[in-house]
Amino acid sequence: MFKKIALLIVFSVVSSCLGDPPASMNPKSYEAVKPETVLYWKMTTTWPPNFPVLGEVAEKYAQWVDELTNGQIKIKVYGGGELVPPLEAFDAVSQGTIEMGCGASYYWAGKTPAAQFFAAVPFGMNSQQLTAWLETGGGYELWKKTYAKFNLVPFMGGNTGVQMGGWFNREINSIEDFKGLKMRLPGIGGKVLEKAGGAAVLVAGSEIYTSLERGVIDATEWIGPYHDYRMGFHKIAKYYYTPGWHEPGSQLEFFINKNLFDGLPKHLQAALDAASKKAQVWVLSEFDKQNGIYLDKLVNEEGVEVREFSKETLDALRKYKEEAIQEMIGDDPLSKEVYESYSNFQKQIAKWSKVTEKAYYNKIQQ
Amino acid sequence: MFKKIALLIVFSVVSSCLGDPPASMNPKSYEAVKPETVLYWKMTTTWPPNFPVLGEVAEKYAQWVDELTNGQIKIKVYGGGELVPPLEAFDAVSQGTIEMGCGASYYWAGKTPAAQFFAAVPFGMNSQQLTAWLETGGGYELWKKTYAKFNLVPFMGGNTGVQMGGWFNREINSIEDFKGLKMRLPGIGGKVLEKAGGAAVLVAGSEIYTSLERGVIDATEWIGPYHDYRMGFHKIAKYYYTPGWHEPGSQLEFFINKNLFDGLPKHLQAALDAASKKAQVWVLSEFDKQNGIYLDKLVNEEGVEVREFSKETLDALRKYKEEAIQEMIGDDPLSKEVYESYSNFQKQIAKWSKVTEKAYYNKIQQ
Repeated sequence: MFKKIALLIVFSVVSSCLGDPPASMNPKSYEAVKPETVLYWKMTTTWPPNFPVLGEVAEKYAQWVDELTNGQIKIKVYGGGELVPPLEAFDAVSQGTIEMGCGASYYWAGKTPAAQFFAAVPFGMNSQQLTAWLETGGGYELWKKTYAKFNLVPFMGGNTGVQMGGWFNREINSIEDFKGLKMRLPGIGGKVLEKAGGAAVLVAGSEIYTSLERGVIDATEWIGPYHDYRMGFHKIAKYYYTPGWHEPGSQLEFFINKNLFDGLPKHLQAALDAASKKAQVWVLSEFDKQNGIYLDKLVNEEGVEVREFSKETLDALRKYKEEAIQEMIGDDPLSKEVYESYSNFQKQIAKWSKVTEKAYYNKIQQ
Repeated sequence: MFKKIALLIVFSVVSSCLGDPPASMNPKSYEAVKPETVLYWKMTTTWPPNFPVLGEVAEKYAQWVDELTNGQIKIKVYGGGELVPPLEAFDAVSQGTIEMGCGASYYWAGKTPAAQFFAAVPFGMNSQQLTAWLETGGGYELWKKTYAKFNLVPFMGGNTGVQMGGWFNREINSIEDFKGLKMRLPGIGGKVLEKAGGAAVLVAGSEIYTSLERGVIDATEWIGPYHDYRMGFHKIAKYYYTPGWHEPGSQLEFFINKNLFDGLPKHLQAALDAASKKAQVWVLSEFDKQNGIYLDKLVNEEGVEVREFSKETLDALRKYKEEAIQEMIGDDPLSKEVYESYSNFQKQIAKWSKVTEKAYYNKIQQ
């Protein structure tokens, strides 16, 4: 999980750079937008400004929407903290203070536990499978239902692919080695870690390096080689473990104020949707390309040794997953409905993946 | 490879059903389209009319473009043979007789051997990797360069994912069992088979069932459980082998007459592109969902036993791949350029996939 830096820049200092646009309309009192209206929107992201891939795709989305709408929707992108703190994006867009946001739905698990299933689940589906669930398996309908309660409409915003397992200053040879391990590992993954006897420590993104260097934590996860390299963890951690069982394919999102979206003409709605599919294709591709390049750098230039968790270790961790999820969703009927759909889809597609994609990696590709 | 049925319906009998549109403009004499012009286009596909997934996505593409352009581009989709025979789609669109087409680029290997690398290569990249190469790895630029020589612009049109290895009436326990095997297996896969001592037999889609039943062929490949089930192969073949080493993730395409496309306003160009990304997401998702359902049907209702080729068998087949490819591309400089880019990208991304997606399938997902 890539927890973002809350920059806390004051909301009021930011003014639009789009050349004196009219004031953005207030979605709370929105009426159907006329076909010829030009809309000036703000997008607040949960990432630091100009964050690689994740911040880039927000800028790209704005550009794609501008092109698709022939200039009818102009979106200006703000980094987390420039308009509102990163984790206030959900509320700000829900209330219509800001037109749209960009993030990952597990950030909103505190609002509604069902949200996390649209982002990442430990030992859950990878990017290809999760995309299938969302696109044709009924997942997107449940996502819309979940967000509609907050006056939001969600859209796909890319997927990270399988993340790395993290940087460790202790060898992990069996499940026993998680006992007493202090690791920065937020979300359900952290709960699984605690059930295995470890301690999930909260550390802001900007403080991870120092915490790991000084032994405040023994381990941390981040994203993958491209982003991890920039954090410099290879300078202070001994082992780089894979695979990221806690985030096997994290789905990113755009979300738009629902009153605002519902009042738009169909062709503008279509543009906002189609641009999100462009993001879905671009993000995973860019992650895969850059992670390949930076894995090479880490291994060949920095001498990093990549280690794989053993199957036994992961089998042991997996046992705690179900319990951790049930604790998080509690008695919430919507969460149960979403998780049932998610789990059933995973069970079915896993059988298909086993005879195709799994066989591909084991026997076709060298 | 899913070779399509050439229905050979006469070109002239088809008239538009879009309610008396103006005659489609002739792209050969195209001038810049005015912003307000409504365009009435035809799309000819290489699939039988209403073919599951592949034909469906052509219809969806037309609908998406209609919505995105606010009705400015109206595309009517024709099955293979309804306007021109399936394999004449490339020429018809190139010459501007028809505005756009839908297919898979390996059908055009006879026009330019470089084309096949944008569809499928035996022991090549799977859907996730190939998409990354096209999207951010330089592949799409090479695809555009390859098609520009034929006055065409290519667009992604979805990916099948790893296909099945095919239906066999003979056990395949080692590479020796391919000797004398008569199999319907077109393209480079067929050349690999012949190097292994088998015979690649040409059979039209409509005749495969009878040929397999009567022993004219010993084996055939098609696509995956969803399409294979409808062909009824499980009623006459003993073994269903996986994985489809010959097509580890076949990329589908749309292609548009280049003169026509270049003359369009930017927002219409953007719509045609964005709809293709929607197709890229939808097709693989629909294949994955349906193949999961139909694999279950075949195994649990029809008693089909899925067998995996052994690693040794696939290692032996892989040895012939390089030779077969070199024979197909010959001295063509463009093919060499494209294959070099493809191969380099595959080498790099395979290392990344190994520590993430491969580890996911082997250790994370049960």
